[in-house]
Amino acid sequence: MAVVSLTVSYNGAPFAGFARQPDQLTVQGELERALELLYKREVETTCAGRTDAGVHALGQVVSFELAPEEWAGREPHALLRSLNAITHEAISIHEVQERSDDFSARFSAKSREYHYFISTAAAPPLVMHDFCWHKAGDLDVAAMNEAAQYLIGEHDFKSFCLAASAEGKPTCRNLMECKVEPVEVMGEPLLRVRVVGSSFLHSMVRTIVGTLVAVGAGLREPAWVAEVLAACDRSAAGEKAPACGLIFEKVEY
Amino acid sequence: MAVVSLTVSYNGAPFAGFARQPDQLTVQGELERALELLYKREVETTCAGRTDAGVHALGQVVSFELAPEEWAGREPHALLRSLNAITHEAISIHEVQERSDDFSARFSAKSREYHYFISTAAAPPLVMHDFCWHKAGDLDVAAMNEAAQYLIGEHDFKSFCLAASAEGKPTCRNLMECKVEPVEVMGEPLLRVRVVGSSFLHSMVRTIVGTLVAVGAGLREPAWVAEVLAACDRSAAGEKAPACGLIFEKVEY
Repeated sequence: MAVVSLTVSYNGAPFAGFARQPDQLTVQGELERALELLYKREVETTCAGRTDAGVHALGQVVSFELAPEEWAGREPHALLRSLNAITHEAISIHEVQERSDDFSARFSAKSREYHYFISTAAAPPLVMHDFCWHKAGDLDVAAMNEAAQYLIGEHDFKSFCLAASAEGKPTCRNLMECKVEPVEVMGEPLLRVRVVGSSFLHSMVRTIVGTLVAVGAGLREPAWVAEVLAACDRSAAGEKAPACGLIFEKVEY
Repeated sequence: MAVVSLTVSYNGAPFAGFARQPDQLTVQGELERALELLYKREVETTCAGRTDAGVHALGQVVSFELAPEEWAGREPHALLRSLNAITHEAISIHEVQERSDDFSARFSAKSREYHYFISTAAAPPLVMHDFCWHKAGDLDVAAMNEAAQYLIGEHDFKSFCLAASAEGKPTCRNLMECKVEPVEVMGEPLLRVRVVGSSFLHSMVRTIVGTLVAVGAGLREPAWVAEVLAACDRSAAGEKAPACGLIFEKVEY
């Protein structure tokens, strides 16, 4: 058996999310359709982080198993070219790697990093137009970073999890980094919220961003975030930020 | 009379170019439609550089004249907000400025800068997907820069001009810079061709890029570019690079 991983980027806009769903265009569905075309059988894939509808990825990792003769029968670069040729044009496969037999894109991941982009300019940016939340009006970055400090470390993030997904499941997570920084992309100013954690609950990054933006806009004090955490109730947190601003940046193994 | 300028970015994809044309969606048409809505009369605009269909702009400058009471009757920031609200969503107006009475976005310009992006990776980039020419396969950047040296300075660029546009018109131009550099945008590698000149002929930047790419791909030697210049014939140069990779970056006044 050969365990193979793909490093994949995608524009989330056309997809109903990463996870395969009947009769819906999904990233996993596209990748598995392409693998089935190449190997004439169903190939089941696992990913590092399931992204929701509209969420983008730069360094998503997807793994699957091939029989030794299936892996040996095709050069890795030929596999990469074929997959790029067959899959939806919003998906780019950048790397094909053989991994150790016990590798899983999901369970071997040590940490995951997400970047969320906000444009506070009067008019939306050019190149990042479809990769940011355009919310005109200044945000107080220092207050947002003060608020973010409350989230770092091990906490019960139930308040930051889609309510239906949190029921009866463990909701403690370890957030290693959460930082808001001004950045420039192609000469245009944006705010980037950089979040690194062991793993994330459903909607957690977007709810963190929505909560920090409520602080940045002056609607709440930074210390409010401690109350939100303590409440363990989704209704305590801020609104979920729009999907289009979120990019699943990379995975560490 | 008040002379007003707008700094405008746009994604060129939905437009039949900058210049107004009957029954076509154009950037100038959109801006003039918006100005007419606001001022209840036709307002004629002039731009720093007419971009072709599909070509983008980050720092296009557009100027027009208003009567003193028209200019005084509306705060500049309110004008900016109104124009952004009325124009096509692919257009962003970033700045409104009052200029001196003799200012013209076109005739006052000292130099214009264009950036052309090429992705040579196996699969297209994420954020720059619609802002580059995806041409898989390595290009020899040193050879391209050697070739670019022949173009710098005052030359007759007739070979680099759309043939129909060159007839009977002066085709000498001063090219101040022409440089190919590897850059990263949102962590993904691209080649950027940076071109600065006093002004440009129709299709000149894209024909320069196509010619440099022929050298970079090893189809031609760098010195071939001197022959192309000397020929004063469009058929001597390389193919015109696709519109989507070109961004009108900025204007110096």
